[in-house]
Amino acid sequence: MAFPEYVRLVEVGARDGLQNEPNPVSTETKLELIDRLGAAGISYIEAASFVSPKWVPQMGDAREVMTGIQRRPGITYAALTPNIKGLEGALETGVQEVAVFGAASESFTQKNINCSIAESLERFAPVIEMAQKAGVPVRGYVSTVLGCPYEGEIAPQKVAEVSKTLFEMGCYEISLGDTIGVGTPLKAKRMLEAVNRHIPMEKLAAHFHDTYGQALANLYAVLEEGISVVDSSVAGLGGCPYAKGASGNVASEDVVYLLHGLGIKTNINLQLLAETGDWITRSINRPNRSKVGVAFMAGKASS
Amino acid sequence: MAFPEYVRLVEVGARDGLQNEPNPVSTETKLELIDRLGAAGISYIEAASFVSPKWVPQMGDAREVMTGIQRRPGITYAALTPNIKGLEGALETGVQEVAVFGAASESFTQKNINCSIAESLERFAPVIEMAQKAGVPVRGYVSTVLGCPYEGEIAPQKVAEVSKTLFEMGCYEISLGDTIGVGTPLKAKRMLEAVNRHIPMEKLAAHFHDTYGQALANLYAVLEEGISVVDSSVAGLGGCPYAKGASGNVASEDVVYLLHGLGIKTNINLQLLAETGDWITRSINRPNRSKVGVAFMAGKASS
Repeated sequence: MAFPEYVRLVEVGARDGLQNEPNPVSTETKLELIDRLGAAGISYIEAASFVSPKWVPQMGDAREVMTGIQRRPGITYAALTPNIKGLEGALETGVQEVAVFGAASESFTQKNINCSIAESLERFAPVIEMAQKAGVPVRGYVSTVLGCPYEGEIAPQKVAEVSKTLFEMGCYEISLGDTIGVGTPLKAKRMLEAVNRHIPMEKLAAHFHDTYGQALANLYAVLEEGISVVDSSVAGLGGCPYAKGASGNVASEDVVYLLHGLGIKTNINLQLLAETGDWITRSINRPNRSKVGVAFMAGKASS
Repeated sequence: MAFPEYVRLVEVGARDGLQNEPNPVSTETKLELIDRLGAAGISYIEAASFVSPKWVPQMGDAREVMTGIQRRPGITYAALTPNIKGLEGALETGVQEVAVFGAASESFTQKNINCSIAESLERFAPVIEMAQKAGVPVRGYVSTVLGCPYEGEIAPQKVAEVSKTLFEMGCYEISLGDTIGVGTPLKAKRMLEAVNRHIPMEKLAAHFHDTYGQALANLYAVLEEGISVVDSSVAGLGGCPYAKGASGNVASEDVVYLLHGLGIKTNINLQLLAETGDWITRSINRPNRSKVGVAFMAGKASS
């Protein structure tokens, strides 16, 4: 029941947020977004995904993005690398960290990549090994930790097993994703406690979606348990692919407001972050899903 | 740290939600809203406000609304009555409960009704007395409990004083309002603890706004303290009058989803409530500010 003194935000807007955009976002806009996020004090930015452009055309400029970034000191620019080919591409750009993406639901894994969870994790072994040889840390995502669009509730023990496997394979941090945003605080706590039996708290991150409006309540609950890394997306970029028009990633601005209100340090300038959210949503003509962003901008307009 | 078994929702959408609507909402629409809320299992509905139609024209049909309700057994239909004239009007309609509205901020009180907090409370004395003589319980609202648009943070002790005065004057329940939605969980807890030193927890209600996205996290925090009455508004009806376009009342659907997820009973049918939120927002052409409502409707549309 002791809150962390400092929480690190992992900003996923440029990758997770933009990868579902119906219209391609220009490389220039992505680079400006990444630069503005850095200027606002975000220290970890997931900037691109090295996947086949056949599958995710929105990420087809991953190389251009990663090499185009004006890197700021103290900021980690990371990329998603689901396979060896993707990792090779990412390493050529001098990526600082990479990430692999597993799931805690068998049905979700079967439907998405047509194999079992065990098989999906085996495929990451060579990716993690090659990254480690290159001296590049690997982050592991586990999705559907609080529910699956195909099989409903997921047992905390299942999340713990998958997380443990990825951790033992060499992932330095496991990000626990409520992919469809169905979780509530006690379920989030129970899931986290199950995972924490195998992995130290400081190696775990919360990646919560706000589809049912529960993300901040869930984050508050896991912050009470000692979670100190939170994934979020500026302006809540990225809707829920399983429910058109619904929310996806929790908005970074709202998370930072919560953290600062709890007396937790982030080193992030919330005003600059809100302005970044306002700018990117205007640029790509999307609603601003950050309530803090909307309130800050409304206050500015009326003052 | 024990959650209540049952939480009573006080639905304020028909009053607090609709009173800021730029276009008048027809009496028929209000009556259908109130009927649908009852059908969904809401047991306490704030249906109207007996204020001068010069000040709040949207509530000018308070008498027609209160007398037009097809009352369901087990449901309390309440009205706001800021003065004797309003109370007389409300009593004529056979109102079951009434409410008066104070604030914890001197600046807010001065700017809104041009008197001190002490003076504003004195004016309620005859209202509460007359209601009690008529056998009608009086609920007391205290606004700006976590911040004021004019003076910023409000001392918990100030909230406690105003709440205590209203309670001692005869209000059977005190609803603590974060009018501008600026609170965060630890501040909400500290405020509640200060009030709870003078008033038993079961006589207190949380009335939190979602302007900065914090309402559910704040509710989770005060539920942990034992709060068992929550004010909310279907579809989050009612924006924030201090920041155009920003959110106001927390959405009832999102609160019920949280409560059910925590294993807390409400006797509310969430599906029916979500359909009510969808219906009213379409009827008055407003965005649905309930994330649960949007997700439920999106799931329905795509299934």
